[in-house]
Amino acid sequence: MSFTVEKTIKTCRGKLLKLSHNSAALNCKMVLNVYIPKQFYENASVAKNKIPSIFYLSGLTCTPENCTEKGFIQIQADKYGFAVIYPDTSPRNVTFPKDCKIDPNDWALGEGAGFYLDSDTLENFQMGTYISEELPQSLASSTDLFEDKIDFLKKRSIMGHSMGGMGALNFYLNSFERNSNGYVSCSAFSPVVNPTAVSWGQNAFKLYFKDYEHEGKKLDPTLILKNKDFSDKNLNILISSGDADPFLENQLKPQNLIDVVTKKNIKGIRVNIEPGYDHSYFFVSTFIPEHCEFHAKKLGLINHLIK
Amino acid sequence: MSFTVEKTIKTCRGKLLKLSHNSAALNCKMVLNVYIPKQFYENASVAKNKIPSIFYLSGLTCTPENCTEKGFIQIQADKYGFAVIYPDTSPRNVTFPKDCKIDPNDWALGEGAGFYLDSDTLENFQMGTYISEELPQSLASSTDLFEDKIDFLKKRSIMGHSMGGMGALNFYLNSFERNSNGYVSCSAFSPVVNPTAVSWGQNAFKLYFKDYEHEGKKLDPTLILKNKDFSDKNLNILISSGDADPFLENQLKPQNLIDVVTKKNIKGIRVNIEPGYDHSYFFVSTFIPEHCEFHAKKLGLINHLIK
Repeated sequence: MSFTVEKTIKTCRGKLLKLSHNSAALNCKMVLNVYIPKQFYENASVAKNKIPSIFYLSGLTCTPENCTEKGFIQIQADKYGFAVIYPDTSPRNVTFPKDCKIDPNDWALGEGAGFYLDSDTLENFQMGTYISEELPQSLASSTDLFEDKIDFLKKRSIMGHSMGGMGALNFYLNSFERNSNGYVSCSAFSPVVNPTAVSWGQNAFKLYFKDYEHEGKKLDPTLILKNKDFSDKNLNILISSGDADPFLENQLKPQNLIDVVTKKNIKGIRVNIEPGYDHSYFFVSTFIPEHCEFHAKKLGLINHLIK
Repeated sequence: MSFTVEKTIKTCRGKLLKLSHNSAALNCKMVLNVYIPKQFYENASVAKNKIPSIFYLSGLTCTPENCTEKGFIQIQADKYGFAVIYPDTSPRNVTFPKDCKIDPNDWALGEGAGFYLDSDTLENFQMGTYISEELPQSLASSTDLFEDKIDFLKKRSIMGHSMGGMGALNFYLNSFERNSNGYVSCSAFSPVVNPTAVSWGQNAFKLYFKDYEHEGKKLDPTLILKNKDFSDKNLNILISSGDADPFLENQLKPQNLIDVVTKKNIKGIRVNIEPGYDHSYFFVSTFIPEHCEFHAKKLGLINHLIK
């Protein structure tokens, strides 16, 4: 579906587009932001290569605005030359079935808590298909906006925060098996790495799946790494978590993933536990430059820089 | 009055303190944020010199959080080595006299709209004294928090946005006459430079002053520059406004200030009209690096950098 440009904002040396569209997968109207870096407007630099893209998946309760306003990726996007897509975290304004008991005060379920999966109990909650297929394809076909100068399908990476960090890891790890368009690299801030072992993940999978134990395993980065063989894959994963994060022990559990990586001696995954930092965007924005440099290297953007 | 530390957040390579205190000038509880840069924690670098400070004054409707979360000054503070103080924009939770007609829906008057002046009609609205005297003195005497390593009184600069840009210009320009502790440099994003000529300023001055025409002249940067002689002063002022700012023509009127500066040939004031940018923090954060470099030069911090 084509996009409506709700607003165009000049920021840094590029432009931020606030977009809306009707999603077929989610069967509702969705909003998102796209940052177009300065290189888009400098014709010479994109004559040969399309501008790569990074999809940023937000955490529980968030909208596209949180990271757009507080993450400060845009200056990095201008530095290296990539576009940034900030999708929403769930379908919006949907009707839940009468027998579906969602507590509207529970911010970890329902709206703002789509968990980037394809539900088999709630028809609108198809964020898996939306993020991995519908949204990038819709963006790629929007030549009216992006002039076929931005690569949303191949030369792209993915990053996320908290629930979105889990989503980024899942989309990245599962893309090898799907043989769908994958991602060059993946990074996550404070991700939920072992959702089947914590209440946020368990409650979500129980709501969104009939057979939540079976389906949950496919959406648990720690279990995916534990159960599948990645020895012939060239993994590019960077994870950062703060050790003063109040959710670290009960919901995020990075040590569970580290244990699997260590035990199986899986290459290509770096986990940084940063002392003193919390779960907020004060943490995310601090390490955005490091994560963007990581992606830029993998996307082949570093060589273009004149030091 | 001493401060209560409501929260300490590690961000960038320093720490953000969320503080509260009882203000004598405003006769109410006030909150503010202070960013302490990494140099504070590196004892060697402050052995000789105190860390300078920059006061950031926010615009209408804002709290200390807006710029703290969206301005992204902290990374610049770490780069150059200065502390940042983010005060609130008015007294809070105050009772207005019965005969004072404040429309609670008018976001340009009352709470969140202190205009950085000392009112003679509303006893709590003494933001002039609060920002220029009480707050910096309270910070300077809080050796429990700042160990006498940060200079809040002398080696300091001031910046602001919109109403806060007006405030920054007024504090800076009026400090020469007051012979009070002044500011090394002043910068403003999208400032209201000629408040007596626009409705935001006129309505505020009518509310806060008995003789609003007389008092308003003392708080109008364009009129101060027009009516006073600064030829023997070494002015250090940087102003940036976006030419797509919806308030530019009706409320900000930078051309009025430019005309006075040009006509009187006043040195030391640079006004940059930036094409395409609006009034938001997407604009402010874009030019924060340039403004911080300006202040860092004037505060003598550039020479300390190893390139």
